[in-house]
Amino acid sequence: MNIFVINSGSSSIKYKLFKMPGAHLICSGVAERIGMDQAGITHKTFFNGVENVFSFKQDIPDYRAGLQKINQLLTDDKIGVIKAPGDIQVIGHRIVHGGEKFSRSIRITPEVKQDLKSLFKLAPLHNPPGYRCIEVAEQIFTNATQVAVFDTAFHQTMPPKAFRFAIPDSFYTDHNIRAYGFHGTSHKYVSEQASSYLKSKNLKMISIHLGNGCSITSIKDGRSIDTSMGFGPLSGLVMGTRSGDLDPTVIFYLVETLGYDLQQVSDLLNKQSGLLGLTGFSDTRDITRALENGDANAKLAYDIYCYHIKKYIGFYIATLNGLDAIIFTGGVGENNSLVRAMVCSEMEYLGLEIDQEKNNALQSGITEINKQNARVNILVIPTNEELEIAKQCFELLNE
Amino acid sequence: MNIFVINSGSSSIKYKLFKMPGAHLICSGVAERIGMDQAGITHKTFFNGVENVFSFKQDIPDYRAGLQKINQLLTDDKIGVIKAPGDIQVIGHRIVHGGEKFSRSIRITPEVKQDLKSLFKLAPLHNPPGYRCIEVAEQIFTNATQVAVFDTAFHQTMPPKAFRFAIPDSFYTDHNIRAYGFHGTSHKYVSEQASSYLKSKNLKMISIHLGNGCSITSIKDGRSIDTSMGFGPLSGLVMGTRSGDLDPTVIFYLVETLGYDLQQVSDLLNKQSGLLGLTGFSDTRDITRALENGDANAKLAYDIYCYHIKKYIGFYIATLNGLDAIIFTGGVGENNSLVRAMVCSEMEYLGLEIDQEKNNALQSGITEINKQNARVNILVIPTNEELEIAKQCFELLNE
Repeated sequence: MNIFVINSGSSSIKYKLFKMPGAHLICSGVAERIGMDQAGITHKTFFNGVENVFSFKQDIPDYRAGLQKINQLLTDDKIGVIKAPGDIQVIGHRIVHGGEKFSRSIRITPEVKQDLKSLFKLAPLHNPPGYRCIEVAEQIFTNATQVAVFDTAFHQTMPPKAFRFAIPDSFYTDHNIRAYGFHGTSHKYVSEQASSYLKSKNLKMISIHLGNGCSITSIKDGRSIDTSMGFGPLSGLVMGTRSGDLDPTVIFYLVETLGYDLQQVSDLLNKQSGLLGLTGFSDTRDITRALENGDANAKLAYDIYCYHIKKYIGFYIATLNGLDAIIFTGGVGENNSLVRAMVCSEMEYLGLEIDQEKNNALQSGITEINKQNARVNILVIPTNEELEIAKQCFELLNE
Repeated sequence: MNIFVINSGSSSIKYKLFKMPGAHLICSGVAERIGMDQAGITHKTFFNGVENVFSFKQDIPDYRAGLQKINQLLTDDKIGVIKAPGDIQVIGHRIVHGGEKFSRSIRITPEVKQDLKSLFKLAPLHNPPGYRCIEVAEQIFTNATQVAVFDTAFHQTMPPKAFRFAIPDSFYTDHNIRAYGFHGTSHKYVSEQASSYLKSKNLKMISIHLGNGCSITSIKDGRSIDTSMGFGPLSGLVMGTRSGDLDPTVIFYLVETLGYDLQQVSDLLNKQSGLLGLTGFSDTRDITRALENGDANAKLAYDIYCYHIKKYIGFYIATLNGLDAIIFTGGVGENNSLVRAMVCSEMEYLGLEIDQEKNNALQSGITEINKQNARVNILVIPTNEELEIAKQCFELLNE
C-alpha cells in the first residue's frame, strides 16, 4: 500500500511517500515559498539505499500548482516512483488543529470537511492551507482515501484540570478557549518508540520536543496527561523566536504604558522573542558558537532555555508522582548535547543522572544516555512525524 | 521602642503598633473604603491579654484624614495606647514595589522618596497610596524615623535565569521589564520561622502563600531563588479573582477574534477570573460549602487550584535539586485543610507525605503535618507581615 503524506505549512508543502507495511520510504521533498518569489521544489528519491536529489526553481503560485508539480515528479517518466496518481492508495494530511472534535485520525468525508472549516477560527494561519491541500489532492489523486491526522489529537486525553484555564466558564463552553497542545504526532511517535525500547506500555514519561518550536508532554500509559503549548503555540518552553510562558501583565504594560499596539506585541512574542530575542540567533548552533566565543547573552539564553525545560520536568514529575523515562527529540533535542547536559545536571533528587560520554557520542536510532543504575531512563529518539502519519493512516484503514 | 506599621492598600490603611524588642502587639486596626461611601475604622487594643474592639463609621475622604483619625485613636484620652504622636519612634511603611533599586528595607530620605516616585510606573495602583502615607506620617509623627519595607525586596536575590523573560534584551535594560515577585515580606517571615523551627539556616524550602492573592517561592539558605508572581501580581498560581498563568495567545484571541478591548481583558483576568471565574465565589470557604453540596464547578476549581500549586512545587524541587520543607501560609494556607491535603496527595516520589490527622487538627503557631519519617517537612505557619515589617525596622535601626 502506497501512503503519501502531505504536511502543509503557511507557505510550503512537505511530503513523503511510504510503502506500507514496512514503512519503506520511497521519496520525499518540499515545495517552498509558495505564492512568493524564489519558489522551488527539492525532491529526493530512494532506491536500494541510494539517495538522488533534484532541485527546481520555478513559480508556485498556489497549493494547487504545488501539488500538481509534485504529482508530475512522482509520475515522471525518468525519475518517477509511481506510474500514475492512481497508484497512491492513501493520502495522510497533517492538520494542525483538530479542536475537541478530533481525538484521533479520521477518513475525510464531506462532513469532516465541514468540521475542519469550523476550526479555521482557532488556527487561522495553519488550518486553511491544510484544508486547501485536501481539496486539491481529492482532484489529483481521485482513487486515494484521504485521511486527516491532527497535531492536537494525542493531547485530547488531558484531564480538565490540565486543559482548563482559570477564567469564567463561558469562555470554554461558548468559545472553546482551553489548552489544546500541539506537536502531538511527534510526542506520540517518540513515546511509542520509547515504550517499545523499554518493553512496557505502563510507563510515566516526559517527551521533550525541541525544534524551532518547542513543547514538552507528560505521558502515562501511552496517553498525554499535560503539555506545555496551550490554546496556541506560544506558551510553555522558550523557543527559537517565541517567548514561551510570559506574565500577562507584560502585555498590558507594553500596550498601556509603552504604547505598542497589540498586533506588534503578538509579532514581538511570536517572531522576535525566545532565543532570537535574547541573542540575535534563533538557531542553537549559532548560539553555541557565540557561547564558545564568550558571549554573555548566549550563556544567559541557554540558562533561561534549560531552566524552563527543568521547570516542566519538575512540574510533570510532581503531577505524575514518578518518572520512568524522559525523551529528547526534535532538531535541538536530537543534536544539541549541551542542552541535554544542562537540562539533566543537578537533577539527582528526581532520579535523573546523565552519562556525559554517552551523551556526547550518540548512535543512530534510539540512544540511552543515563548512567547505568539511574532511576530514570534518559533517551534520545529521532522523531519522524511523517512516518507516524503514515502509520496512523495504515492502522485506520486496517481496522 | 514603639514601632508603628502602616500597610496601605488602594482604598485602605491597615496598621499595628508593636513594642520592641519583644514584639508586643499594643493595638491594630484598619481604615476602610477611603474616599468611598460607608467608610469607617475598626480599632483593637490589647491590654494584659484582653482585646477591646472599637468600630466607627465616618467619612474618610483621603489618606490624610485616615491617618489623622488613627492618630486620634492612638492618643485618645480614654482608649489611647500612647500619650502623644511623639511616643512613636519608628514608622514602618509597607511599599509594594521596590524595583531593582531596593533589595532591603531602608530609612526614608528625600532621595529615597524620589526613587519611590520613579517606581509609580511599575505599580500605579499600589505605590502611590504608600507614598502618600509616608508624606502624611512625616507631618503627624514628626519625631519618628520613617522606614520603607518592600514586598519585592526579598526576591531581589533571584538569579537572571529566573527573573528574565525570553524577550529582547532592551525591554529589560530600557524598560525594567522582568519578574520582581511580591508577598516577599510574608515569604521571608514564614521561611525564617521554619528555619528556627527546624534549627538550620541551610535549607531548601518552598513557601506557599495562599490568600486572596497567592504566590509560591523557592528558598535556599534563606534566599529567594524564584517566585511565581512576576512583573505584576497576576501570574503564577490561581487566585481568588486572578487567573494566574495564562497562555498569552488567549489575550490576543479575546481582542482580535472576540472583540474585547484590552482594558476589559485586564479586568477579566485580574478581577473576574481565578476561583471567582470558575465558581462564582472567590472565598474558598464558600467553595468548600458548594463542594459539599456536590457542585461540579467547585470540584473542578479545587482541582485546578491545587494542580497549579503542585506544578510549582515540582518546578522548584527540580531547580533546587531537593527539598527540606514546604510551608503553607496565608488565610487559605493556614485554614483550609482540604487544599493542603489535595496539594500533598500522591507526592511520595518527591518526598511529601501528609499526616491527615495532624492536618485536620492544627495547633496554634507552627504545626508540622508530615508523616513522621517523611523526607520533607510539611509545615503550617501563620504569617504576620506587620510583625516582619516591625522586625526589619528594629534591625535596621540597631545596625
